[in-house]
Amino acid sequence: MTVGNEKTTVGFVGLGIMGHSMAGHILAAGYSLHVSNRSRSKADDLVAKGARWHDRAGEVAAAADVVITMVGYPRDVEAIYLDSGGIVERVRPGAILIDMTTSSPELAERIAVAAKRRGVSALDAPVSGGDVGAREARLSIMVGGEPAAFDEALPILKLMGSNIVRQGGPGAGQHAKLCNQIVVAGTMLGVCEGLAYAKRSGLDPETVLKSIGAGAAKSVLLDKMGERILRGDFAPGFFIDHFIKDMSIASAEAERLHVELPALHLARRIYEALAAQGLGREGTQALFKHYES
Amino acid sequence: MTVGNEKTTVGFVGLGIMGHSMAGHILAAGYSLHVSNRSRSKADDLVAKGARWHDRAGEVAAAADVVITMVGYPRDVEAIYLDSGGIVERVRPGAILIDMTTSSPELAERIAVAAKRRGVSALDAPVSGGDVGAREARLSIMVGGEPAAFDEALPILKLMGSNIVRQGGPGAGQHAKLCNQIVVAGTMLGVCEGLAYAKRSGLDPETVLKSIGAGAAKSVLLDKMGERILRGDFAPGFFIDHFIKDMSIASAEAERLHVELPALHLARRIYEALAAQGLGREGTQALFKHYES
Repeated sequence: MTVGNEKTTVGFVGLGIMGHSMAGHILAAGYSLHVSNRSRSKADDLVAKGARWHDRAGEVAAAADVVITMVGYPRDVEAIYLDSGGIVERVRPGAILIDMTTSSPELAERIAVAAKRRGVSALDAPVSGGDVGAREARLSIMVGGEPAAFDEALPILKLMGSNIVRQGGPGAGQHAKLCNQIVVAGTMLGVCEGLAYAKRSGLDPETVLKSIGAGAAKSVLLDKMGERILRGDFAPGFFIDHFIKDMSIASAEAERLHVELPALHLARRIYEALAAQGLGREGTQALFKHYES
Repeated sequence: MTVGNEKTTVGFVGLGIMGHSMAGHILAAGYSLHVSNRSRSKADDLVAKGARWHDRAGEVAAAADVVITMVGYPRDVEAIYLDSGGIVERVRPGAILIDMTTSSPELAERIAVAAKRRGVSALDAPVSGGDVGAREARLSIMVGGEPAAFDEALPILKLMGSNIVRQGGPGAGQHAKLCNQIVVAGTMLGVCEGLAYAKRSGLDPETVLKSIGAGAAKSVLLDKMGERILRGDFAPGFFIDHFIKDMSIASAEAERLHVELPALHLARRIYEALAAQGLGREGTQALFKHYES
């Protein structure tokens, strides 16, 4: 198999907001595309453009040289890869498996081991950049796995991302993504506490941002989320529920690695309280509501 | 008095690393400069260039149209302004007082009231940008006080800063600076926890920064402090002791305003533990050491 020419057949499992955009880029680049998703309707426009539908992830794997997955939770990843009739059982020898879900490093390692037994390489390749990054093919893709498989997958990954870095062996992509989420968790706490203080002290938060938005406090989150918070816009760029999933994986890994991360713990506790209040489908900037209550 | 021409006499009290650079810009712009400082030797080069030395802050005030102070702690601010023989007692009618120390909003309000009784305007104008910002006259200056006094002081402030914003009445500059420090506290927690996780999970933290340094986790602190932490450089840009002072003021104000800021509280607790271990004169990036111990 030679990835990177148009004879390569690509399978894509999981056509949520991000997966749908990502699969679309691969189809648009001229690859033969096989897709599957929990609800079939999400695949309709891709099928209309020539993608082949399959009811099960295992069937996609049986048809493809490169199998990409972008699903919800680690339990979903585990099921589609490791269950009987799943991807690892049905995959063609010599293929490459790429899980782009944010999932557990330990599971990524298990999948890599199971894949190797079948003569197949597996990469973990979670992303950051959200729905906009996926739509504009400007994702940051953090990859774990063997160098040879990374090199081979690179032409496909380049269709979806603009910053593609191999972080190490199996699981390393997931570890790097968790680092990203840990930094985001602390930064979000700082942004929301600073803005909450600004409002409570009687300042005009927009004027405060003019002073603090250009110095040491400057961050992408202060800039983007700060502006949304002040507009009262809590619509999801990234769901609180999904962020809680990521933080839960990070907490479990941190515990396994014997490193205490109290700010991550604090952020997770507050977000879980917000989800318990029914805010799980709001954007992560709704953390601010905790400080207003 | 007309501030902004070279007949204006400026007093500057507090010639620490930042104050010394700031006073130097005013002298270089051709103003008549009167200075005072706890240790006289810090004034030697300014005096050699024409500044007039005084042993006490009150004497500086008696000689100046604009009195600027940049000292250590709120207790120092209170003493030089409000003690017998201090700035408020000795200041000339019609002068402007500008405290650029990061200090308590409540104290700034008290000074403004006391100054008004003497027919004098007082501004609180704390800065961010550190020693480099002071040296390069690129500070962000957050100002609280009356609009007329702000307008009059602006030509002098412009000699020291590039981003000068009036945040509201007396105390508002201090409140805005506290917002800045609250955002910084949370962001520093995120940066250090993310890098600690990266190291503990066996990743190469520099490679991780290549993935996460351009997306949602991006911040000035991740960029600057991340690099210093990975080099093992814990030299102070900003002392842990001074950051603890700022966080203590912010905590006290938050309590007074009935807003709970648990991430600020967490950061302060960890920094205080580091100071108790003798690290108070290291830079704030030494927060990372907490996660290595």
